[in-house]
Amino acid sequence: MSAIPQDFVRKTAQVSEAITRPFPGSRKIHVTGSRPDIRVPMREITLAPTRMGTGSEDNPAITVYDTSGPYSDPEVKIDLLQGLPSVRGAWIEERGDTEALSGPSSRYGQARAEDPELAHLRFAHIRAPRRARPGRNITQMHYARRGIITPEMEFVAIRENCRLQEMREDPRYAALLRQHPGQPLGANIPDLITPEFVRDEVAAGRAVIPANINHPELEPMIIGRNFRVKINTNIGNSSLTSSIEEEVEKLVWSCRWGGDTLMDLSTGKHIHETREWVLRNSPVPIGTVPIYQALEKVDGKAEALTWELFRDTLIEQAEQGVDYFTIHAGVLLRYVPLTADRLTGIVSRGGSIMAKWCLAHHQENFLYTHFREICEIMQAYDVAFSLGDGLRPGSLADANDAAQFAELETLGELTKVAWEHDVQVMIEGPGHVPLHKVKENVDKELVDCFEAPFYTLGPLVTDIAPAYDHITSGIGAANIGWYGTAMLCYVTPKEHLGLPNKADVRDGIITYRIAAHAADLAKGFPGAQVRDNALSKARFEFRWEDQFNLSLDPERARDFHDETLPKEAHKVA
Amino acid sequence: MSAIPQDFVRKTAQVSEAITRPFPGSRKIHVTGSRPDIRVPMREITLAPTRMGTGSEDNPAITVYDTSGPYSDPEVKIDLLQGLPSVRGAWIEERGDTEALSGPSSRYGQARAEDPELAHLRFAHIRAPRRARPGRNITQMHYARRGIITPEMEFVAIRENCRLQEMREDPRYAALLRQHPGQPLGANIPDLITPEFVRDEVAAGRAVIPANINHPELEPMIIGRNFRVKINTNIGNSSLTSSIEEEVEKLVWSCRWGGDTLMDLSTGKHIHETREWVLRNSPVPIGTVPIYQALEKVDGKAEALTWELFRDTLIEQAEQGVDYFTIHAGVLLRYVPLTADRLTGIVSRGGSIMAKWCLAHHQENFLYTHFREICEIMQAYDVAFSLGDGLRPGSLADANDAAQFAELETLGELTKVAWEHDVQVMIEGPGHVPLHKVKENVDKELVDCFEAPFYTLGPLVTDIAPAYDHITSGIGAANIGWYGTAMLCYVTPKEHLGLPNKADVRDGIITYRIAAHAADLAKGFPGAQVRDNALSKARFEFRWEDQFNLSLDPERARDFHDETLPKEAHKVA
Repeated sequence: MSAIPQDFVRKTAQVSEAITRPFPGSRKIHVTGSRPDIRVPMREITLAPTRMGTGSEDNPAITVYDTSGPYSDPEVKIDLLQGLPSVRGAWIEERGDTEALSGPSSRYGQARAEDPELAHLRFAHIRAPRRARPGRNITQMHYARRGIITPEMEFVAIRENCRLQEMREDPRYAALLRQHPGQPLGANIPDLITPEFVRDEVAAGRAVIPANINHPELEPMIIGRNFRVKINTNIGNSSLTSSIEEEVEKLVWSCRWGGDTLMDLSTGKHIHETREWVLRNSPVPIGTVPIYQALEKVDGKAEALTWELFRDTLIEQAEQGVDYFTIHAGVLLRYVPLTADRLTGIVSRGGSIMAKWCLAHHQENFLYTHFREICEIMQAYDVAFSLGDGLRPGSLADANDAAQFAELETLGELTKVAWEHDVQVMIEGPGHVPLHKVKENVDKELVDCFEAPFYTLGPLVTDIAPAYDHITSGIGAANIGWYGTAMLCYVTPKEHLGLPNKADVRDGIITYRIAAHAADLAKGFPGAQVRDNALSKARFEFRWEDQFNLSLDPERARDFHDETLPKEAHKVA
Repeated sequence: MSAIPQDFVRKTAQVSEAITRPFPGSRKIHVTGSRPDIRVPMREITLAPTRMGTGSEDNPAITVYDTSGPYSDPEVKIDLLQGLPSVRGAWIEERGDTEALSGPSSRYGQARAEDPELAHLRFAHIRAPRRARPGRNITQMHYARRGIITPEMEFVAIRENCRLQEMREDPRYAALLRQHPGQPLGANIPDLITPEFVRDEVAAGRAVIPANINHPELEPMIIGRNFRVKINTNIGNSSLTSSIEEEVEKLVWSCRWGGDTLMDLSTGKHIHETREWVLRNSPVPIGTVPIYQALEKVDGKAEALTWELFRDTLIEQAEQGVDYFTIHAGVLLRYVPLTADRLTGIVSRGGSIMAKWCLAHHQENFLYTHFREICEIMQAYDVAFSLGDGLRPGSLADANDAAQFAELETLGELTKVAWEHDVQVMIEGPGHVPLHKVKENVDKELVDCFEAPFYTLGPLVTDIAPAYDHITSGIGAANIGWYGTAMLCYVTPKEHLGLPNKADVRDGIITYRIAAHAADLAKGFPGAQVRDNALSKARFEFRWEDQFNLSLDPERARDFHDETLPKEAHKVA
């Protein structure tokens, strides 16, 4: 019997209807791959016919990429207490290179599992964690390099295409498929994404499939310059126990509007338990910054951090199923003085924690000195690195400076080490950068880090618009995505000012979906313009409902229309 | 005695306190030029000192460009019934090359002035219109070409600099003046804007000072690639008489948030009277699309338009004081078939009116065939051209196509004709353009139109986000501004969906101020980074009040902060 109190159950079992109701005019579909258990979710938007004089002409349905997971699937009964169904469990097991453990191997994980005071908060159906069998390497990069196309790779290939080949073979789509040739600036995007292409990109380190073996609920996705540009969102609870259900609600909300991955930046007493709830209910990869939790374990005293404590935290989180870790291993002792003359010093939280530790001990960053051991842990669960930019600029003034670029070079050195272990790597980037200095960041990252996927926060192209930093950064994000960044970390209107509420999260996500899509169009990603064309055609023909339904935010488009032109008649003019 | 009814007076005499109250921490200042009546308005933001251990260090005040006019000046008593004080009246009179007419010379203007039924709507203090004396040319371009630096030119030079030279001479600003060298992409921005530089740019046609001699209330500003990037906003009434005061309120609202110019796109029965109220109370240049009013005069029947009617409308509006006219003279008969295969045809309202006229008569566009006569009218009042892009793309699919670029080449041909008359010219641009095709628009405009200032609508870089088109277009606007566009026409969240309310206007303006500023930074406009640096320093030092006050929207920054961290103590940490 569950120890979770009834009121918690009542609040938690269901997410609100507002965040699970199907999108208007849409239905969930699944495209099946080479085996029946490769079922790739997409959303199909049905359109009204075009009225023409006496008759009418059909408008074929439009398929769009779908991050919303089972939550938008009326066939799936959502029960947060049970967690999502497993997508990848069989694929992981059949590879035969992992084993189920009897329980958590981290000391912290064990202690939390045994603490009776946490029973009321604990997710009830915790699976035994899995780990690579001794001597085996189980990362997607490892398989790719051995020439193996995993179901995960096939899944993402199908997902990236969004039924492009079917459209090409159907003459009704001919006009909609017209697209401007892109300006890929060095990206090599094929005419169609094949599983073999995915394998090759993962093998080369140019793309990452974040997919911890302990997160089988995840619907695989890929992050790489030759794929659709992705966006990450952040959530983070305050320290109140009551907020577990709020965090899960935020997760579902983020997936609904288009977050491709999600970072759980929670702090406070119940990080471990919150994370379990989030992972078990997340269809998207989850990232964390393990040093945040390690710091909580030493009551916020950076100088008290140790490698052993950090190591235990990595294992704890890896066994829960976190898909990628931000690790600030590039903040070297000798780089800290380079920030002395900055206008805004070190603004990355992870960066300042590690700088403080280095200065307090006058020793090299233990994340750097223990990097190979970190790789061995990541390898055993297939956790991807997101090498943190602890010295990123916190203002335009500090953009592209010596500290930032010195760290980037070290991240390149670490990338090579990770790749020796076949561990997948992304590289984090800034931050605050004036528009004309944005490209230099990508160009340098591609060289210094050997084309490992770049994952940037914005960047904000001006510092003077707090309350509008989703926009200041969305401008930078569209550009940096075009230039070659693989994933854009969103920024909400509350950036620099406070904690985002649901409205802020939605504004941030839509802004970043715009930026990512603008980048896809600029790079010439095949089929990217279909939705633009279909919506523009609907607009030109006054098919209002289709215009709403094809838009990134159908609800708001409709509301705005109805504010001044509320008559039903106006919508089907 | 005024014939305006008392309730109208009561509603109209004052604009609401919300749109006139001074910005927090700010005071209105005026920088005096070479003569006492050149008083250039700016806003000075006072900052708190930085607390340092035992003592503190002063932070010098920051001066920002100020479009808000006398409305934010506590020294000025606003009375909308009187209109704003004259800024330029003496300058115009002392040149001795214009004369006051006895009344309006347009037939329409005469009829409206004499119609007793309009008495209750009519602005009471209508000045006699002025016009160039016979044989005289009174445009800013004409003076510039003759080597004359007008007070208007000196005014804009002082305004562009925002006290930069004073900051350079004051060591307290040394750190704040640090700025990344720009990437001007062919712009030639001097280290300091001098009156002589302004004259030279206006003479060359690279910059425009829209300043009709019948709009002496205007505070001169300049539009050109080698100056700060400007933004335009649009207002437009519905056809209800009660909305005159609403339009004036929208005008003041637009100026408050940073609109540099404003287009009055009003339709309906009282366009003429509304325009008078707007002009008499506007500190910023006003633009119109005269063909809209001409069309009203023929009850919306495009084919019924005539050159004589249009000519009368131009004179009517020029004598009221409109500063620039959008004229769709580049929509040639032979270009119309080029739009046949477009996804979204002709979406410009002016463009489709003229295309319809051309097709109905199978004759060349009368705006093109009568272009020299139009120049003569513009010249007599110093109205600037904004040569309309009637064939601009209405969707990504139609961007940069043959129709669009054919028209652009014709606009270049017309630019030369206008310049033969010393009439100032801007060139309008799109619209909807994918990110990687934006630059081609600027590059082509600069060549085809001989560097006449480019004035673009957005462009939107994707079509899939109605309700967020301020953002889709803000991305394009920042880029096109960087590439060389001189003025950005704003887009609100209601674009494509309905009429913007005040909240939408504010969102649109702030988004475009962000875009314009991002472009200034990218081009390396001298001193542009001072405000970013000051705000970032305040942020790093937790001087919350300064952070709010330095931001583009202090009210919203404060509100967002207070939502989650409402304690006063947090603001002065």
